[in-house]
Amino acid sequence: MGYTAAIAGASGYAGGELLRLLLAHPDIEIGALTAGGNAGTGLGDHQPHLVPLADRVLAETTTDNLAGHDLVFLALPHGQSAAIARQLGDDVLIVDCGADFRLKDAAAWEAYYGTPHAGTWPYGLPELPGARDALAGATRIAVPGCHVTTATLALFPALAAGLVEPDLVVVAVTGTSGAGKAPKAHLIGSEVMGSAAPYGVGGAHRHNPEIVQNLSGVAGGDVTLSFTPILAPMPRGILATCSAPLAPGTTEEQVRAAYERRFSAEPFVHLLPEGTWPTTAMTLGANTALVQVTVDAAAGRMVAIAALDNLTKGTAGGALQSANIALGLPEATGLPMTGVAP
Amino acid sequence: MGYTAAIAGASGYAGGELLRLLLAHPDIEIGALTAGGNAGTGLGDHQPHLVPLADRVLAETTTDNLAGHDLVFLALPHGQSAAIARQLGDDVLIVDCGADFRLKDAAAWEAYYGTPHAGTWPYGLPELPGARDALAGATRIAVPGCHVTTATLALFPALAAGLVEPDLVVVAVTGTSGAGKAPKAHLIGSEVMGSAAPYGVGGAHRHNPEIVQNLSGVAGGDVTLSFTPILAPMPRGILATCSAPLAPGTTEEQVRAAYERRFSAEPFVHLLPEGTWPTTAMTLGANTALVQVTVDAAAGRMVAIAALDNLTKGTAGGALQSANIALGLPEATGLPMTGVAP
Amino acid sequence: MGYTAAIAGASGYAGGELLRLLLAHPDIEIGALTAGGNAGTGLGDHQPHLVPLADRVLAETTTDNLAGHDLVFLALPHGQSAAIARQLGDDVLIVDCGADFRLKDAAAWEAYYGTPHAGTWPYGLPELPGARDALAGATRIAVPGCHVTTATLALFPALAAGLVEPDLVVVAVTGTSGAGKAPKAHLIGSEVMGSAAPYGVGGAHRHNPEIVQNLSGVAGGDVTLSFTPILAPMPRGILATCSAPLAPGTTEEQVRAAYERRFSAEPFVHLLPEGTWPTTAMTLGANTALVQVTVDAAAGRMVAIAALDNLTKGTAGGALQSANIALGLPEATGLPMTGVAP
Amino acid sequence: MGYTAAIAGASGYAGGELLRLLLAHPDIEIGALTAGGNAGTGLGDHQPHLVPLADRVLAETTTDNLAGHDLVFLALPHGQSAAIARQLGDDVLIVDCGADFRLKDAAAWEAYYGTPHAGTWPYGLPELPGARDALAGATRIAVPGCHVTTATLALFPALAAGLVEPDLVVVAVTGTSGAGKAPKAHLIGSEVMGSAAPYGVGGAHRHNPEIVQNLSGVAGGDVTLSFTPILAPMPRGILATCSAPLAPGTTEEQVRAAYERRFSAEPFVHLLPEGTWPTTAMTLGANTALVQVTVDAAAGRMVAIAALDNLTKGTAGGALQSANIALGLPEATGLPMTGVAP
Repeated sequence: MGYTAAIAGASGYAGGELLRLLLAHPDIEIGALTAGGNAGTGLGDHQPHLVPLADRVLAETTTDNLAGHDLVFLALPHGQSAAIARQLGDDVLIVDCGADFRLKDAAAWEAYYGTPHAGTWPYGLPELPGARDALAGATRIAVPGCHVTTATLALFPALAAGLVEPDLVVVAVTGTSGAGKAPKAHLIGSEVMGSAAPYGVGGAHRHNPEIVQNLSGVAGGDVTLSFTPILAPMPRGILATCSAPLAPGTTEEQVRAAYERRFSAEPFVHLLPEGTWPTTAMTLGANTALVQVTVDAAAGRMVAIAALDNLTKGTAGGALQSANIALGLPEATGLPMTGVAP
Repeated sequence: MGYTAAIAGASGYAGGELLRLLLAHPDIEIGALTAGGNAGTGLGDHQPHLVPLADRVLAETTTDNLAGHDLVFLALPHGQSAAIARQLGDDVLIVDCGADFRLKDAAAWEAYYGTPHAGTWPYGLPELPGARDALAGATRIAVPGCHVTTATLALFPALAAGLVEPDLVVVAVTGTSGAGKAPKAHLIGSEVMGSAAPYGVGGAHRHNPEIVQNLSGVAGGDVTLSFTPILAPMPRGILATCSAPLAPGTTEEQVRAAYERRFSAEPFVHLLPEGTWPTTAMTLGANTALVQVTVDAAAGRMVAIAALDNLTKGTAGGALQSANIALGLPEATGLPMTGVAP
Repeated sequence: MGYTAAIAGASGYAGGELLRLLLAHPDIEIGALTAGGNAGTGLGDHQPHLVPLADRVLAETTTDNLAGHDLVFLALPHGQSAAIARQLGDDVLIVDCGADFRLKDAAAWEAYYGTPHAGTWPYGLPELPGARDALAGATRIAVPGCHVTTATLALFPALAAGLVEPDLVVVAVTGTSGAGKAPKAHLIGSEVMGSAAPYGVGGAHRHNPEIVQNLSGVAGGDVTLSFTPILAPMPRGILATCSAPLAPGTTEEQVRAAYERRFSAEPFVHLLPEGTWPTTAMTLGANTALVQVTVDAAAGRMVAIAALDNLTKGTAGGALQSANIALGLPEATGLPMTGVAP
Repeated sequence: MGYTAAIAGASGYAGGELLRLLLAHPDIEIGALTAGGNAGTGLGDHQPHLVPLADRVLAETTTDNLAGHDLVFLALPHGQSAAIARQLGDDVLIVDCGADFRLKDAAAWEAYYGTPHAGTWPYGLPELPGARDALAGATRIAVPGCHVTTATLALFPALAAGLVEPDLVVVAVTGTSGAGKAPKAHLIGSEVMGSAAPYGVGGAHRHNPEIVQNLSGVAGGDVTLSFTPILAPMPRGILATCSAPLAPGTTEEQVRAAYERRFSAEPFVHLLPEGTWPTTAMTLGANTALVQVTVDAAAGRMVAIAALDNLTKGTAGGALQSANIALGLPEATGLPMTGVAP
């Protein structure tokens, strides 16, 4: 147990998933657990699946309570991370599961979030070219949005290799836990079960500029993106169906080779055998992203589909993977390779 | 009760939905009910929700058993309709919920179905330009595929008005009943619940050439289509997210106006108020298709989304709507305008 | 259209189901639609499945707005019905889907609801012995609780015939819509999907004394009841598994005969063929209750199971069935006999 | 890695769950994987969530293929275990997840399974009085049925303490994975979703005599049991609602004390804090059983509810827990204490 970690926002879904993973991490000990409105209540009231932590009491999310740990994971509503980070000092590794430090473009931030831009931190998507170098030794990490991780992994190998035109269409089916735990009318079970429901259509979703940022970086130029998320009746999982026009002369073999090259050495991202398409069920609770790709010659498009668990690889698992890198630990330490199925 | 109707394939999902609707139809009386392997068993064993028909026994699907009715609805595996139709005579209205007579292009039929092309019948999508004229007085009707109805309704107004380029991307989330009642390993509840699962990716789905046929016809020229269906954990419903590049100069107002023009007089297809996106739950059990459309200027694309119940408007309801037209009955006779929610 | 009806609470689940049914009722016209906090908004915002009523605006729930109709359906939180009923006058048929006038025992009311007892109205469970006589010509109707209708129908034939001891165990699996539309943390989809969750265990559920009241009345003496409701991941449906010790000498034949006698002439309650057990899916959206019963000789108990749709036969359909009786209309007028499946 | 284990039936749900757990077990290495009809195919085709084993090929289930391991886990249809066990020799620890060696009473076996009784092995429910002694050093283990584990844990403390009469009612809501992976019409997603469906009502379920065996043993005399399992729309989980008449003079305090006494030192079975009722979601993927109990004075009954994951604590986790004991390893080795939620 070389390190101690505090978790801010421990009563929410991202916080709960962080705790589930940290309980199995051999080198990080769970320290303070804090919350906002739920401070003073027992963790067992909010995360009854975390039996070994049932008796822990939630402290208030204050800098005092978070101080004194080697790591601090922030799973907070956006806008709260900057103040905490300022006060905690540079020797603490702060891993922000929120949005505050993801975007480089202050104008994009302000357009989508309506508040002043807080800055940019090293970006916690290790599979992205150059990302591991930036994460090594970092003391600040911005964890990507869950839709962003899915779409980026599905598309970047083809874009980096120049095999598709940068005119992207992403339709992402997502489970309900991405919307968090706060009760809202459209999220109650009676509304959600049996229904597929689009939201943030037409570029309105906050993950839109972040996907564009990642893929423009990889493509070495502007990309356009049509992104439609769809709420589906399942608690977890994102399945992103992504397509782009083929660049002139691109072949199926080239596409497959580009993805194999990128992912063959990755511990958590896998190109599936030809003909097998990923499903969200394959990834439940695992830090795994599964990808498949094909060329639709008649349509002149490449279609790539990625599946992952929005709370694991999409949030808490990705956060811990990046933290491992920052701390100099083996990247896969404490991270589940296998999902829970069926 | 002016007419009598036989239903071939009464033990399946399409057959059950036809019966549910026919029980409420004032002008059509339910006659013979036939089945393949289930012949000789009681309808109540297969359709326990159809209480008033619980004691009816399924006859074998033979021309003899289907003869002597004014209408015959066929809900059979593809390849069986032609022989039956030949023998029943031209004075019987045959409504085929299967694929056999949908495609005009024999080569496309053979490429996707692997059998000789049987021909083409009047096409049962009344909302398509010119379709009602072809259906009036018809004695043969080919009911469109469920994905086809959804994608066609979502896209044809913009294509007909020349507001988008004919380079289409459709990602359709669908419930499991579209896959029918035959037990297959990937369709059992344990596999389906909690999972989003793509299939027929890259143009392989049999509804692909039929969507292309409809939309090429409307566009007055070739269209390309990237179509990805995704199985979601719900029994019914299709939500098709459709997009296409904007034609130069196209505005949001033009797009909206085109859809309003097409749908304002339609009894079953509705453009939702601005800002409201359709969900499948809104349409459960209704013969309704709900559509919304927007322009994503940054992406340079129009996004149109349609939702409907694959068994009602997508199959049995659409079949009955077209049959009403063919018989000269008011088009909405006996068809539910309201869904069952939540 | 002989009658007009106002609906108070039209934006909730019970109100929505009442409207769905009334749209198909040939003798009742939909009049004022009122709501509490949702007054002033469009019905389409809350009940998008009710397409023909999409443009109706919700008025405030006041006596003024409800006055001037032949019928008033109340779908309100408990405690609000008495004041409205007092002011509306005795010539209006008031059908209360809430709890206020169900219980005869003021002490039981106060123990379970914590407010003064408002009184008792004719009880809207037509299948109960004597109930139709009390409903004929009534101007006030108390609609039973959804769990109460299910458990009562499952058990009363055996109790009335003295075939079981009055020591009852009921475990009722229920969909989420019974909990209403107000967003609560334990009702959001992420919590509900994939989970079976008991509540009100040990006699705490408010439907407990009402079941006891019905069954004591039928048994002609006190009954004891152990009642456990369990929330299951489905929007609609109740399946009540009910058992009681066999009275000395009771045979399977006697039990079956008692249920057949009670239900053979009922339009909406059906004893299934031997060996077929009811499921909630068989009843979705129908005003039907399906019952099966058996004798477990080794256990010395009768087991009876009833399934129904909590919003249809369990609330709005039962309300309309009772209203039909009160108005002198054929009891089944406008009520769906068939469910929507799958 | 002190031990090697072969798994027979590796392509099914129990086999998959065993592999998921064994991948995290520090002292047991995964050896041969065998199957029946799926022999020759890749494990990745059947268990795509087990990424680290994706390339393993399934051998045929023969004694030769299973020989040479320290442990053999059998996850086979009933009737196949005896022959395999005979041939493998007494120095191999055989853990049978099937039913063959669970029942002591040959007549009960033959009545419920219709084949000759194979015998009885040490019973793999460590929490049952005396069970750990029988398991220590055993070379044969019969893993209990999933419903049996749930009902036994819920009821045995009260029966052992004489606090209830031995007249038991158990209604168990269960996920679909307990029915296995073989496709059957009533198990396809379209049928399962949105439905609660009883089966094996009236004592017909094969777990019935096994529950009776366990609880009669604990009670020191005959018990009667009314057991009703109900299929619910969720892949995993059992929630057993169990009740029994209170013995004269029994108090809530006595009941609570009896459960605390039994479970306070158990690593995997927990009595929840007063007022908190278990749900299946709390246990997903964990080897945990959660229990709550109350006294319903008006009904004169004790109500105890237990929740667990049918594949983990109910099958594969329980099997591994018992194997740990047999091998002399710490009982909790490699077993997840935390579930995956939401």
